[in-house]
Amino acid sequence: MSEPLRLGIAGLGTVGAGVVKIIQRNKALLEARTGREIVISAVSARSRDKDRGVNLSRFDWEDDPVALAKRDDVDVFVELMGGSDGPAKAATEAAINAGKDVVTANKAMLAIHGQALAEAAEANCRVIRFEAAVAGGIPIVKALTEGLAANQVTRIMGVMNGTCNYILTRMENAKLPYEEVFEEANALGYLEADPTLDVGGIDAGHKLALLAAIAFGTKVNFDAMELEGIERVSIEDIEAAADMGYRIKLLGVAQMTGRGLESRMSPCLVPAESPLGQLENATNMVVVEGDSVGQVVLRGAGAGEGPTASAVMGDVLDIARGIRVSTFGQPAQSLVTAKPAKANSAAPYYLRMHLHDKPGALAKIATVLGESSISIDRMRQYGHADAAAPVLIVTHKTTRDALDRALSGFAATGVLASDPVAIRIETV
Amino acid sequence: MSEPLRLGIAGLGTVGAGVVKIIQRNKALLEARTGREIVISAVSARSRDKDRGVNLSRFDWEDDPVALAKRDDVDVFVELMGGSDGPAKAATEAAINAGKDVVTANKAMLAIHGQALAEAAEANCRVIRFEAAVAGGIPIVKALTEGLAANQVTRIMGVMNGTCNYILTRMENAKLPYEEVFEEANALGYLEADPTLDVGGIDAGHKLALLAAIAFGTKVNFDAMELEGIERVSIEDIEAAADMGYRIKLLGVAQMTGRGLESRMSPCLVPAESPLGQLENATNMVVVEGDSVGQVVLRGAGAGEGPTASAVMGDVLDIARGIRVSTFGQPAQSLVTAKPAKANSAAPYYLRMHLHDKPGALAKIATVLGESSISIDRMRQYGHADAAAPVLIVTHKTTRDALDRALSGFAATGVLASDPVAIRIETV
Repeated sequence: MSEPLRLGIAGLGTVGAGVVKIIQRNKALLEARTGREIVISAVSARSRDKDRGVNLSRFDWEDDPVALAKRDDVDVFVELMGGSDGPAKAATEAAINAGKDVVTANKAMLAIHGQALAEAAEANCRVIRFEAAVAGGIPIVKALTEGLAANQVTRIMGVMNGTCNYILTRMENAKLPYEEVFEEANALGYLEADPTLDVGGIDAGHKLALLAAIAFGTKVNFDAMELEGIERVSIEDIEAAADMGYRIKLLGVAQMTGRGLESRMSPCLVPAESPLGQLENATNMVVVEGDSVGQVVLRGAGAGEGPTASAVMGDVLDIARGIRVSTFGQPAQSLVTAKPAKANSAAPYYLRMHLHDKPGALAKIATVLGESSISIDRMRQYGHADAAAPVLIVTHKTTRDALDRALSGFAATGVLASDPVAIRIETV
Repeated sequence: MSEPLRLGIAGLGTVGAGVVKIIQRNKALLEARTGREIVISAVSARSRDKDRGVNLSRFDWEDDPVALAKRDDVDVFVELMGGSDGPAKAATEAAINAGKDVVTANKAMLAIHGQALAEAAEANCRVIRFEAAVAGGIPIVKALTEGLAANQVTRIMGVMNGTCNYILTRMENAKLPYEEVFEEANALGYLEADPTLDVGGIDAGHKLALLAAIAFGTKVNFDAMELEGIERVSIEDIEAAADMGYRIKLLGVAQMTGRGLESRMSPCLVPAESPLGQLENATNMVVVEGDSVGQVVLRGAGAGEGPTASAVMGDVLDIARGIRVSTFGQPAQSLVTAKPAKANSAAPYYLRMHLHDKPGALAKIATVLGESSISIDRMRQYGHADAAAPVLIVTHKTTRDALDRALSGFAATGVLASDPVAIRIETV
């Protein structure tokens, strides 16, 4: 039996408490699998007195996470405070400078400061591990960094914000508008303190940015991501998409093209019968496509005490076993700066519009599409009581540029009764 | 840049050729990710002259895989010959004794000799890695051994023989009987030379036995598995199951119970809308349930050149990076001998029977079920032209023991026109 591995845990919210529980409950199992005892030396959190459902009395307490990170009896600093800057970043930097390995669930910190932190860690021969930052309990960081490392990744996609997927599936199942389900989710405590992090796609975008860095060997570049949240997804579009055989998901897609790295987090249509289309509620899914492996799909709980703590502990056990891989799968200094590319790769699009009910209206729309070199796969015009006819169109594959030309052309026809909705259909 | 990692590859079939292609095509990528050049020192196969679509001229050739395994210029012996004994085992043992690490895709060898080989490797401080032996390109061995290592696994399930899943989905989609689809699959070259390995569930059983060892920290025990192939799955049952909302899959399930380790590979019903139920054709899926993570599902190609070679190379890259984990996730000497338990854990069952068309027949069947403490969830009797009425029953959860009592009781009623079919419904 080797020396115990000694942890300092900063942040004792749901996940932190979950980590403590695993260490206490599965003590023998963890030792059998790593050959080492996993011990907690000290912990830190905002309030010492709060009841967290775990016994913390045997651990030292530090009010200051930076002090915790530097303790001599800490080998691994476990950062579960959250926040891209402030104490989380200060303590992580202190840990690295003090020669500690770091395990974190902090997607925001890494999406913004990941390159600098990884370089600092590697300069000190330390590792930063972040399985828990992406897709909760799904071991996707490990799969991408290690298991699938022989692959040139061609595309990576994911539904990685459980709250958004909950809202979208709840809207569909209960036939409720966005605003109403948003309020429900808020009342249930499903949303971050700043809900824009969830519904604006920022949280999921942070996760995708981290996966893209590993997949393509590029520096994390969250700022280059095309970001659109679910705030404008209407129950009308959800129902119309279902009618055409699709479901709407907040889907992240990163793919390397000849023009550069496309990365976007936005509502997309996916086939209802595809694995992504079948995803209900808060479950997460990540799809990796590689030149050798083809398509691999991982699915699991994207949040919650147990799943996220499982991911944190997976990283801790790797460190206990001596598994040391660069933060983003290759030395941070060797990561290249990807040229960001507009998300213009060819895809079918879904269009929904209302046309004035007069002769030739539909012909004008079809003509504009033809002039933009966009061909129509399927079209439906619905019966209607008022003066505007609801029309759905699914195009064949086209580019966003061509689509934008068509949308401008539509406006000039004078037959639109309202702004058309255009949503990319991601082929999976 | 560290020293190159030098491979000796024995077996140049589809997978071996795929490994060579990855090393040649993704050379720069592999170096960037591991910090080492991955080189092939020598290869071995039955025929030197066969065209494999890859250039082997720069590698030394060995007729004898044992000689290859012992070469001084080989760090990792890559065993892709197959077969539980014979040259594969001899060369693997030789490699271990010569101080080489081993990467293998050989499920049969490990399912039978895995404990002895792992002990030998660990006595020599060498690793045996076998990601490619289980579920093709899906990185399930790594996920289970490392990413999910903090979990007490409660159950592991998988559809892990692509050929069987192809046959079952083809039967359903084309409404063809087993024998006809079997012949089709054979003509397409989908079956092993000994088809029983596929359709008898043996190949999938080997894979499940390996995963169970990791999941439960137990010695591999393929012999204790309850094994039933797909040969007796009828198109009638496939259609009747579909009618009740289920699909039939050759499903492996291992779970630890108070009575011991249940492990079985057998046709099961799964809900048609579950991830397992939606699995088409040769795709594989593994479901892991852990005490912290809940349910994690991995899906991907279960066979083929690219996916299997991706898995082989994932293991090679781990070795290049210095990742060294015990073959079954903990030292082989510490694996315990699991007590095998009859697959008697409670589950709903599907029953299909034909009853003589006379008053009271159904009542007698219902009475026998009641006397066996089995309650009926759903029952359907279908219209019929002949003298025997087709009846489908889905029970509430019951044990196999209770079910066997009921089946005996049915026989004594005299109302059965044929032997009843009983298939477990796996709740997922």
